[in-house]
Amino acid sequence: MKAWRPASCAVRRLEPVSRSRFFTSSSVSRRRAVIVDLLEYDSFNPDAAGETEQDVTVNGWVRSVRKQKRVAFAHIGDGTTTKPLQAVLKPEQAANLSYGTAVTLTGAWTPSQGGKQARELQVSGVEILGENHAESNPVQPKYQTPEFLRTVPHLRPRIPSNALLLRLRSQVISTLTQFFDDQDFVQTHTPIITSSDCEGAGEVFTISSNDSKVSDQKATPKGQPQVEHFFRNPKYLTVSAQLHLEALAQAVDRVWTLSPTFRAEKSDTPRHLSEFYMLEAEVCFASDMKQIMDLVEGMLQNVAGYLVVSRLGQELLETRASSTDQREAEDTITADVLQQRWHGMASQSWPRITYHEAVEKLQNAVASKEISFEFKPTIEDGLQAEHERWLASTVGKGAPVFITDYPTAQKPFYMPRSTATSNSRGSEQTVACFDLLVPDLCELAGGSMREHRSQELLQAMESKGVAGSNLEWYQDLRKYGSVPHGGFGLGFDRLLCYLSGVGSVRDVVAFPRWHGRCDC
Amino acid sequence: MKAWRPASCAVRRLEPVSRSRFFTSSSVSRRRAVIVDLLEYDSFNPDAAGETEQDVTVNGWVRSVRKQKRVAFAHIGDGTTTKPLQAVLKPEQAANLSYGTAVTLTGAWTPSQGGKQARELQVSGVEILGENHAESNPVQPKYQTPEFLRTVPHLRPRIPSNALLLRLRSQVISTLTQFFDDQDFVQTHTPIITSSDCEGAGEVFTISSNDSKVSDQKATPKGQPQVEHFFRNPKYLTVSAQLHLEALAQAVDRVWTLSPTFRAEKSDTPRHLSEFYMLEAEVCFASDMKQIMDLVEGMLQNVAGYLVVSRLGQELLETRASSTDQREAEDTITADVLQQRWHGMASQSWPRITYHEAVEKLQNAVASKEISFEFKPTIEDGLQAEHERWLASTVGKGAPVFITDYPTAQKPFYMPRSTATSNSRGSEQTVACFDLLVPDLCELAGGSMREHRSQELLQAMESKGVAGSNLEWYQDLRKYGSVPHGGFGLGFDRLLCYLSGVGSVRDVVAFPRWHGRCDC
Repeated sequence: MKAWRPASCAVRRLEPVSRSRFFTSSSVSRRRAVIVDLLEYDSFNPDAAGETEQDVTVNGWVRSVRKQKRVAFAHIGDGTTTKPLQAVLKPEQAANLSYGTAVTLTGAWTPSQGGKQARELQVSGVEILGENHAESNPVQPKYQTPEFLRTVPHLRPRIPSNALLLRLRSQVISTLTQFFDDQDFVQTHTPIITSSDCEGAGEVFTISSNDSKVSDQKATPKGQPQVEHFFRNPKYLTVSAQLHLEALAQAVDRVWTLSPTFRAEKSDTPRHLSEFYMLEAEVCFASDMKQIMDLVEGMLQNVAGYLVVSRLGQELLETRASSTDQREAEDTITADVLQQRWHGMASQSWPRITYHEAVEKLQNAVASKEISFEFKPTIEDGLQAEHERWLASTVGKGAPVFITDYPTAQKPFYMPRSTATSNSRGSEQTVACFDLLVPDLCELAGGSMREHRSQELLQAMESKGVAGSNLEWYQDLRKYGSVPHGGFGLGFDRLLCYLSGVGSVRDVVAFPRWHGRCDC
Repeated sequence: MKAWRPASCAVRRLEPVSRSRFFTSSSVSRRRAVIVDLLEYDSFNPDAAGETEQDVTVNGWVRSVRKQKRVAFAHIGDGTTTKPLQAVLKPEQAANLSYGTAVTLTGAWTPSQGGKQARELQVSGVEILGENHAESNPVQPKYQTPEFLRTVPHLRPRIPSNALLLRLRSQVISTLTQFFDDQDFVQTHTPIITSSDCEGAGEVFTISSNDSKVSDQKATPKGQPQVEHFFRNPKYLTVSAQLHLEALAQAVDRVWTLSPTFRAEKSDTPRHLSEFYMLEAEVCFASDMKQIMDLVEGMLQNVAGYLVVSRLGQELLETRASSTDQREAEDTITADVLQQRWHGMASQSWPRITYHEAVEKLQNAVASKEISFEFKPTIEDGLQAEHERWLASTVGKGAPVFITDYPTAQKPFYMPRSTATSNSRGSEQTVACFDLLVPDLCELAGGSMREHRSQELLQAMESKGVAGSNLEWYQDLRKYGSVPHGGFGLGFDRLLCYLSGVGSVRDVVAFPRWHGRCDC
């Protein structure tokens, strides 16, 4: 396993913005200015902030407009930054502007007369681009509850803090793409429609085509009508890419995917959706689970490290600090807590303790009256949410914590026995796996070695009752050049919650789907 | 619209490989050598090829083994390159090696005794990593038909030319991610489960949960049992991300997604799958369709430009030139044709002609007996496949061709009328749209301006019979700060076919799904 590289790209983002990027006098087409560039340019080039730039064109939406007798001020946003651009207009120019209006403004970018920003746009030309019924707009520039905003997911992203979450998702995808490229991983597209609920991972969605025919002629012995399936037999929406990824890993060694995943569970929690993105990776020629944990650690250090030094991170902190967001939920994450999360995740050498050690710590804490739990921590009963929460907050001291080598009975069929080195106690009854816990959110990722021995896999499948369930192909992977390997899966939307401090996955996913809800 | 940047990253890939990358003597852990790095290193550092490097460790799978009396030769692949590494072993070391065996080899990387490569691995240690039943392996190191290989998608990627297709997909995703980043686009995740077959894009898949209950109590007036839907009413697998992307574009200006898309069509062609990836983008503040075409052109020039100069491109050409692949299909694409495709796509200023001009060209060609078609080209009947093929091959001269401004009747409801500038003839009856045609494959992408006026959109929806079909939210986008915008969709798997010369999308998708087929 090669060492991961630090987030060098982050630094690039903080370099001064090139003047030529938006102030061009090309005769072919004058480039438009993106608002973030205009504002950033000045903060990196303080000398320039005293100058006036003529003929600047800005596109955006009116966030607010303040009309006075002789002058009007409008805040314009285009989604590239949470900060608005201040435009100064004549009252008659602002007459038809209201919250939400899409405009193209032309004017002079001049030193500000005392506004928050170094410069402001002295508007010479206003073009209104389309309809805007500000008063009937369900989204208004005031506090609205997250639950209300979930009813209008098509309009919600126009709120600057929601647009910021779209940019966060995009940036994290980019950072991951670069990270895995640097590590020689191959990004793959695993299938969405699959044949089996292989992991017993919960309820699945079944798919059918519109013309799946119910045929009377083909009635089953019990007299029930038989459906003609589009794919010959019933198919489901995937619950995990892992098994398919394992097949692809044996072709190119290291693979990853960021792919939609589905569960038809009737959960009504801030942590579950029926449709969500999973980041999954598999690594061949890995004989030690340490390699997989190193990979997860390096990857997330890179992602969090970017936020620590970037403008995007700064915007997230400012958004957290703003009073509007404080009203969102009882367990509001402050800017300080958010920054602690990033620094914890960007820190080196996260603690790694075994499940047995974890239970021991819990039991000791109970014995010493350090804490009391509703459920008694025991090896057999598994870690409850309250236990995980305590472990995440006390063991890691802000950094994420790996809990390794869980009891066999608690984990899926494909996990091999622990090795003696990783878990000297109880390697007979435990498997080589880990859960990654972070403060507040608890489980963020899980991974394991994969049983690569044919006979052992078959036995595990039989004992877990999944043998033969359309998984012959998966058993094949162990017959023709089998190789020790391991991998992990990470809840991508949960990661975005953790990084942004947003309390519910329903608010970091643009069009969330959960039981009873599939708006738009 | 900012100009796209040339594929500067491509050049980086051709730089000499750093020695430290894999020959390290770190006391912590000796890094393993990836085969492509070992082979590349020598080709960029000819002087080093005369030296011997001790203690090199290589992981991989045996592609072939040749056992002689005193010596054995094995070709080892790890999926990082189509080229194998030559390993020289003692016969007893090779005794248990056969096609497919996963091994870790240790040895000296020494100047070759006359092999094709500058150096070869003189093996001192062999470790066999797992089971391998070479004889019963469905995949054998000989020609096997694509149709047979589709029955074993879990094993097929182990064939070097298929592993190469996985790497191509990954590289194109990376290139696109970088391209859109540079253009300030936000990468988004649009929903897979949606409420409507909005575009009338064909048959859709319906989803249900395992416990959608059939309730007798809730029987409908006609006495049919009523299904309790997980999401309250029937939901479908998305046929296009476009409408949702349009909503997100109005938050952050420019968005893109590479997302799975579904059609329950019973097509049995090399161009159609039931599950496929679409690359879609939307651009706000675009008043001229030229901007959208510029974007598509810049994006694909970047992707093709990378192949022209990269090792990956070289491997694709060598794979095409190999005799095995010539047997694949009647319409085999030679290495020369493939290179022409890339150069055509990397070229500047692709032709753009209107639909009316296209039909005129077709009619003139028929009149002058240059070509004869089965179907007569007329404005009303639309372009047939044979027409598109002729246009793609003759108008573009190797470059892709944009056909713009199709008749309103042939296109979906969301496309606005052509502007007089783009299509002086017939702007009343045509819409501001384009199809992108490439030689052989024909339609690769399609795009248009989107009707951003509320009233005009509603009229179009009514005239196409889609008004009210769960698309109220889409109409909303025109009411609250509507803005001129446009976008496009590109068949990602088709693009990979075109770039690789592979004849069927079934062979560029790892686990293809089509009518009746969902293997693994």
